[in-house]
Amino acid sequence: MTEALTSTRDRLVLNAARLFQQRGYHGVGLAEILAESGAPKGSLYHHFPNGKADLALAAADWAGGEMQRIMADAFEHAASFDDGATTLCFKLAKLFDLSGHRDGCPVSSTLFEGAANDAFRDRAAEIFAGWIGTVTTHGVRFGLSPDAAEMMAERLFMGLEGAWVLARAQKTAEPLRRLPRLLGHMPGA
Amino acid sequence: MTEALTSTRDRLVLNAARLFQQRGYHGVGLAEILAESGAPKGSLYHHFPNGKADLALAAADWAGGEMQRIMADAFEHAASFDDGATTLCFKLAKLFDLSGHRDGCPVSSTLFEGAANDAFRDRAAEIFAGWIGTVTTHGVRFGLSPDAAEMMAERLFMGLEGAWVLARAQKTAEPLRRLPRLLGHMPGA
Repeated sequence: MTEALTSTRDRLVLNAARLFQQRGYHGVGLAEILAESGAPKGSLYHHFPNGKADLALAAADWAGGEMQRIMADAFEHAASFDDGATTLCFKLAKLFDLSGHRDGCPVSSTLFEGAANDAFRDRAAEIFAGWIGTVTTHGVRFGLSPDAAEMMAERLFMGLEGAWVLARAQKTAEPLRRLPRLLGHMPGA
Repeated sequence: MTEALTSTRDRLVLNAARLFQQRGYHGVGLAEILAESGAPKGSLYHHFPNGKADLALAAADWAGGEMQRIMADAFEHAASFDDGATTLCFKLAKLFDLSGHRDGCPVSSTLFEGAANDAFRDRAAEIFAGWIGTVTTHGVRFGLSPDAAEMMAERLFMGLEGAWVLARAQKTAEPLRRLPRLLGHMPGA
């Protein structure tokens, strides 16, 4: 997958994002990221002067952007807010299936273990605000008031993060697939 | 706090639970847990033959039991399911305030970094099932059908885990305090 990428920096960021999502920030060593990226140690500090912490921020940014794109896609082609929310839950369930029922939220996995690290938590808050903002924008587009749209977006965010936690424990994407019904976005609740 | 505890095993479990909750499984070394517990290395392997992994399971069990007690308390003294759910969210918000807006879910923090570790995930699933079961029982007591009670309990679990993630990123318990309204357990949604 990473062979076609041109820059060492991109390879470092993508491999870091993937490995942190699987095993967490403290669970992955720099040596492994460098080996998987075919990068010498010097290039890491060239691109990321503060080393692993800088790389984690870049990895979270990249993964957070990918997630925001998935969210936007789900809502852009939706017929209603409920439809968009349901599509998003099912898309993330599918991705969770593809990960072997293993990978958690890429931002939580990468930026929460250094919970004493203010910069990590600030960046996580920023990325989450971007996600919630994207869904809020679509809620308004579908006719919700700005306040109601933000509440719905925040509730969906919380539901997704929590469903992800349960999905990892249960090793099945079913919690993510049940979420639209639990939140009333799908009939049957 | 740990001085009054009688056994070395208890001190090891409590300190491990506290440290893992703050910094995650990979973020805490055995040496630190032993030092904080005033325990020699030999006693660790006496009580936990598989070392850190065994200790993490015991720590998650202990913290999971504490959490289940908090959940049961919130619902036992409640006038309705909505009232119990609201009380629970506010109790956890208060605990999050007391942690300096730092500590996440004790089970996720302890058992998810070794996501490749099946025993960890199975134990997390068991503990979460206990929590959801406790809330389901109270839902039935308040007149919900077993299916509806389980859905409400699972939705509350997901909401709490997700609100915790947002609370850690934003360094404020407000997401936990907003949750009862977002889920319709409090008026104002």
